[in-house]
Amino acid sequence: MSAPIYDRVALIGLGLIASSMFWAIKRAGVAAEVTGYARSAETRATAREIGLCDRVCDSAVDAAKDADLIVLCVPVGAMGAVAEEIAPALKNGATVTDVGSVKRHVISAVAPHLPDHVHFVPGHPMAGTEHSGPTSGFAELFDNRWCLLVPVENTPSDPVDRLSRFWRALGANVEVMEPDHHDLVCAVTSHAPHLIAYTMVGVADDLRRVTDSEVVKFSAAGFRDFTRIAASDPTMWRDVFLTNKDATLEILGRFTEELFALQRAIRTGDGDHLFDYFTRTRSIRRGIIEAGQDTDAPDFGRGATQR
Amino acid sequence: MSAPIYDRVALIGLGLIASSMFWAIKRAGVAAEVTGYARSAETRATAREIGLCDRVCDSAVDAAKDADLIVLCVPVGAMGAVAEEIAPALKNGATVTDVGSVKRHVISAVAPHLPDHVHFVPGHPMAGTEHSGPTSGFAELFDNRWCLLVPVENTPSDPVDRLSRFWRALGANVEVMEPDHHDLVCAVTSHAPHLIAYTMVGVADDLRRVTDSEVVKFSAAGFRDFTRIAASDPTMWRDVFLTNKDATLEILGRFTEELFALQRAIRTGDGDHLFDYFTRTRSIRRGIIEAGQDTDAPDFGRGATQR
Repeated sequence: MSAPIYDRVALIGLGLIASSMFWAIKRAGVAAEVTGYARSAETRATAREIGLCDRVCDSAVDAAKDADLIVLCVPVGAMGAVAEEIAPALKNGATVTDVGSVKRHVISAVAPHLPDHVHFVPGHPMAGTEHSGPTSGFAELFDNRWCLLVPVENTPSDPVDRLSRFWRALGANVEVMEPDHHDLVCAVTSHAPHLIAYTMVGVADDLRRVTDSEVVKFSAAGFRDFTRIAASDPTMWRDVFLTNKDATLEILGRFTEELFALQRAIRTGDGDHLFDYFTRTRSIRRGIIEAGQDTDAPDFGRGATQR
Repeated sequence: MSAPIYDRVALIGLGLIASSMFWAIKRAGVAAEVTGYARSAETRATAREIGLCDRVCDSAVDAAKDADLIVLCVPVGAMGAVAEEIAPALKNGATVTDVGSVKRHVISAVAPHLPDHVHFVPGHPMAGTEHSGPTSGFAELFDNRWCLLVPVENTPSDPVDRLSRFWRALGANVEVMEPDHHDLVCAVTSHAPHLIAYTMVGVADDLRRVTDSEVVKFSAAGFRDFTRIAASDPTMWRDVFLTNKDATLEILGRFTEELFALQRAIRTGDGDHLFDYFTRTRSIRRGIIEAGQDTDAPDFGRGATQR
């Protein structure tokens, strides 16, 4: 157990990220008390049942009051309203952060509401699973994953350093980044891949000549990999695309261009082009495995063990 | 151990599928002897070292001679030439099958070479991993996966039934299908998803403003799921796209149409459209898990265990 980094932490919103943060905070012993709030009474009841948070409050203001770190864990589209609601209750010198997948939009939605006597250090833990809700969290979610901090202008280094130490204690690696670069990096590594997966799954579902049961039965041939990320939380992802519109559309434009080039190679029978392309993409996979960001076990290790 | 279903089985080509078949044949005890052949001397040497096949032969003809079942395990584009080579050596009453991912093309490339005294029962075990080569096989690869058999016209039922029993003994479920329907089903569940994954990985690799190391570091946000199938064998996949051109291009056309509709929803801010789409795709994932075709563990279970 380390010493507490924050005396009191407030988690506003109790889904996959917040619940994982709570269990990771407890594992690391880096907060004396964790309060929590969720808009839905059902979620609050579930949280109380499973011991999620030391104290579950019935309003965001109650949870945020007297907290040293307030973490906004609601969908990106709801951040502004929550910030406005809790602003009057924020303690002098407190740090406000968030876990949203886009940063430019969150900064413009949240920053105007916050009083001068708090520090706003936007954040984005790049971790998740296809599951959502208060029961989906687990302490190891952030282990060896990256948390990006995107401080607004003129933020002193102390609150940023303290938040970095906090995320490291939760298992994450930390990097500081500019908001626009953050939003572009995420459009490439996360937002465009999710939209493409959603699209592929939608197409398969829609094909009249191939039945749903065939799509399901034969999914291990590749399709099922897409269904995992296409099972992610619909509200969260709607908000991501609406608030990181420009970067996502730019990457999707590049994607379509490239896809058309490969389609042309198929149509014209240009086997060399296809072979070279498929050889190049293979090496990126190796880089990811060497960086410890994925398993080398065949099929993500989900099935049998390799000889 | 069951009784042998075939006295001698010949595996022509010794990659992921053939090597997995060998270990699965041994596990089930369904062949008295398994011979093997690979074009590359290095692969044959590796096979001998690791005990892959009871006898590794230096020519396809030697391996196929006197075999009761001959399995063509080479890339789809090489099937015709191999069939032509071994045809004169085939035993009276033998069954020839293959494991290629497309069927219409394999049938037209292989069938004309085979003598009337053998049965041709094309097959396609829908299983694989992103690894390839003789050391990548394991006995459990086909467990609870599907093997599609696509018999040519006028094939008697005996050789089809016997091959079905053989694949079931190797752990697979078996279904009989028409060649054109097979190729369409695979375009949806396998070929289009692979091309899309290859494209997404290529785009990420190509973006100048996002460095390769950023793509690798932050890949757990979704991108890494695509890199697994984009690490599959380049020769095999080149051949698949060149020989299942029409069905693949048709599905990619549908995909592009759908992607454009979602891009327009993002551009115009149509959140309801996005939300409804993402909700619908979530239910397919549930179907796949209920059918035992994927794990429900978060992140394919590759990381930490869930609370």
